[in-house]
Amino acid sequence: MANVEPILSAGDIATWDRECDVIVIGQGVAGTCSALEAHRAGADVLIVERASGGGGASAMSSGIYYLGGGTAVQKAMGYDDTPDEMAAFMMASCDPLDPVAVRHFCDDSPSHFDWLERQGLPFERTEFKGKAVFLNDTTCLMGTGNEKLWPFNKIARPAPRGHKVAGTGENAGHVGMAPLLSKCEQEGIPAIYDSNVVALVRDEGGRVVGVRIKQAGATIHARARRGVIIAAGSFNMNHEMIAENLPLLGATSEPLGIPSNDGAGVLLGMSAGTATSAMDGVIPTASIYPPGQLIKGIIVNKRGERFVAEDSYHGRTANFVMEQPDQKAWLIVDSEIFAYPEIPTAKHTLVDGWETIEEMEAGLDLPTGSLVRTMAGYNKNAAQGRDPLLHKDASWLKPLDKGPWAAFDISFDRSTYLFITLGGLKTGPNGECLTLRSEPIPGLYAVGASAAHIPRNGKAYASGMSLGPGSYFGRRAGRHAAGANWTD
Amino acid sequence: MANVEPILSAGDIATWDRECDVIVIGQGVAGTCSALEAHRAGADVLIVERASGGGGASAMSSGIYYLGGGTAVQKAMGYDDTPDEMAAFMMASCDPLDPVAVRHFCDDSPSHFDWLERQGLPFERTEFKGKAVFLNDTTCLMGTGNEKLWPFNKIARPAPRGHKVAGTGENAGHVGMAPLLSKCEQEGIPAIYDSNVVALVRDEGGRVVGVRIKQAGATIHARARRGVIIAAGSFNMNHEMIAENLPLLGATSEPLGIPSNDGAGVLLGMSAGTATSAMDGVIPTASIYPPGQLIKGIIVNKRGERFVAEDSYHGRTANFVMEQPDQKAWLIVDSEIFAYPEIPTAKHTLVDGWETIEEMEAGLDLPTGSLVRTMAGYNKNAAQGRDPLLHKDASWLKPLDKGPWAAFDISFDRSTYLFITLGGLKTGPNGECLTLRSEPIPGLYAVGASAAHIPRNGKAYASGMSLGPGSYFGRRAGRHAAGANWTD
Repeated sequence: MANVEPILSAGDIATWDRECDVIVIGQGVAGTCSALEAHRAGADVLIVERASGGGGASAMSSGIYYLGGGTAVQKAMGYDDTPDEMAAFMMASCDPLDPVAVRHFCDDSPSHFDWLERQGLPFERTEFKGKAVFLNDTTCLMGTGNEKLWPFNKIARPAPRGHKVAGTGENAGHVGMAPLLSKCEQEGIPAIYDSNVVALVRDEGGRVVGVRIKQAGATIHARARRGVIIAAGSFNMNHEMIAENLPLLGATSEPLGIPSNDGAGVLLGMSAGTATSAMDGVIPTASIYPPGQLIKGIIVNKRGERFVAEDSYHGRTANFVMEQPDQKAWLIVDSEIFAYPEIPTAKHTLVDGWETIEEMEAGLDLPTGSLVRTMAGYNKNAAQGRDPLLHKDASWLKPLDKGPWAAFDISFDRSTYLFITLGGLKTGPNGECLTLRSEPIPGLYAVGASAAHIPRNGKAYASGMSLGPGSYFGRRAGRHAAGANWTD
Repeated sequence: MANVEPILSAGDIATWDRECDVIVIGQGVAGTCSALEAHRAGADVLIVERASGGGGASAMSSGIYYLGGGTAVQKAMGYDDTPDEMAAFMMASCDPLDPVAVRHFCDDSPSHFDWLERQGLPFERTEFKGKAVFLNDTTCLMGTGNEKLWPFNKIARPAPRGHKVAGTGENAGHVGMAPLLSKCEQEGIPAIYDSNVVALVRDEGGRVVGVRIKQAGATIHARARRGVIIAAGSFNMNHEMIAENLPLLGATSEPLGIPSNDGAGVLLGMSAGTATSAMDGVIPTASIYPPGQLIKGIIVNKRGERFVAEDSYHGRTANFVMEQPDQKAWLIVDSEIFAYPEIPTAKHTLVDGWETIEEMEAGLDLPTGSLVRTMAGYNKNAAQGRDPLLHKDASWLKPLDKGPWAAFDISFDRSTYLFITLGGLKTGPNGECLTLRSEPIPGLYAVGASAAHIPRNGKAYASGMSLGPGSYFGRRAGRHAAGANWTD
């Protein structure tokens, strides 16, 4: 549980044990980028990290940065994405709190990618065109969201915007964090580890001017002449905050994160009067793909009805499963496309196989006639390449008419849904912490997963929407806290 | 304040004073449509209304029904709208809780329009092409939402979907309610007035089987053999619920509704375990148009920055104003487009006129250089017919370079923002009340403004998204409660 004390008054701090210009709390991707930019803008920076080294949850992530608008990789692979197409997609799908911030992110996305490469992050000029949750090779570019999904594909030319660092597997993120951490070290940015910020300090004028830090056997106070940047991760691991904000997550849901994602960053910001946003947003995931052929199956609820286009991004599908009656859902396949879902953590179990759809309907305890009706309608339309109900793309449509049939249980309480929370502190385009009425709190910033994500709803999330905006707004906050303009 | 008691057990009701099949609480548009369909499906219906007659807030509204997909009026006026285009627009802009329900609404929208006409609602084959909040004539078809606004205009062919009954002014809604109330009377549907439902009653199995009604000097209990339909309006007038869910509404915000919109319907549903949705959604409105020429102005916040495309639907603009720093905003015009905003309730005051933009910036107490920079950038792009920041349509772009200049204060605390709440009970495609985990509560339905609106966010609302879905889902709930299928 997070150990956060009420905000302190500067007048009560007898001695400042350390002084600097900008304190950065947390050394994941957002904190690292903040620290580098603040340092390069001339500020005296101090990084305070709870773990014994840098990296945070970013180093444990799959290493995908959501970027677009015509990045070097997109261009090399033949995509003519533009900031405008990217902004149209994000504006329509993400319901962002701050459209101006989204516009900045899209406009600056190609140059931000170049900046990341200049820091040493390795990105190949390669592309993966299939459906995957993470990759077991070093390929870079991949579609990671709902760009090709109806109706989003009507808003903007779909372009792949997931930029994966050249590492492999579901924890490839460390390959991107290593060069960022090296840069901090090379440039001599001081960092203290095993150090837990437990309180903010503000002066009489309401400006945040420092922090209280707990270390083994010691409590110290550090003064920040220009600003404090909270980059301390999400509240994934805070059971109390999860129960309060996300009651639909159940006993079999497991947070994706590291122990310090206990909400301390969010609680620190709130202690200074920062508002929160999107606290009820979440990305649960227990993907049915890979293999992609399973997308040709259908997903039904306990009424025997389809409710989500099966070619949705896995986090979108999971959000819909979470909202179904009793949170029950099954993936139905025929013999032609039968395969086991490959994501091992999901634990989708094969219920059984049946010779007829009637038997399957009874075996799954669905209302009499419901699945027969759903499949008859689906198959008839699929034979014509149509899905008038949910608009699954024609490339995934085929009649499920090659019995026998099988069903996988993908219910919320039978599979394991990993989740990432989307909510956090309300911030402006430079990471400024904002009150309910959007007044900035002087001297206080929040970036990365301590701030609310751009998508307020898990149905709009795409892989990379943590590291991409986290690194970008981290940089902006660093410059702003140091007193520099973004465009200088 | 709403007078709602905890749910009662059927075993505690000594005598049922009345018995019927379906009880409909409230006789606005949703309740009327529910009652008509349940009655026509063979149910013995009882309408219980708090006022001394039917009509509800629907009769006080501007009488606009959001319908499309190729209605008779759209066809007559030359628009080839389709259910698919309408669904794409609503899916992308509204973030609906139940996409299947939205699909039904769009698919059935043309036939639902025909049904409304058959009940006697008068709709002309005429169109208003300008920008208005309500009309002082009997014209029918008008664009009432963000269909033409970027990026929504990229999702679907924009089509006007506001269908106004042939009445005039901001309370034209009664012209639509009169024939619906007449039908109820002609068909002999019993209604009791001045009767306040204060509690639901459920049996041992958890099924809602009746209500407790308070009348002047009497308390009676009515049994419903098949179902209870809550159609009792919104929680607009419930100060406590507003303060809890919508803290950004301020002292100068005024609810649009009638006294019985005190949240009783929502609280009744909650007493049976119904979940709520979109409780933080709201449409504030204090439109800058008409006249439309004011859309050629720009709206800036206290940082001197634009934050919303000025051609947004007025409720969307107001939502953005609500979220700006200190909730401050100004409409800036030059001499060429100068006019006073015409909506009298908005009370947008002219701050002053200035000979130079520098003087205006100082006069509005904006940061030095901010407004000059914003207007220089805007004017340069507008001269080329472009608005790269916010994509206001080219038809509304002109350089604001004909001084002197003027500013209207449209701040949240200086103007009067009228508001409609969007939140309410969580329901399924037939109006079934749903628990947090989307299990239906047997025998209980909610429709109209007692249920959550389709758009969960006020930025996506369009005029008519109360009466349109309210009348449609009212009908579905009536049939379902009566035991009939929708498609029979």
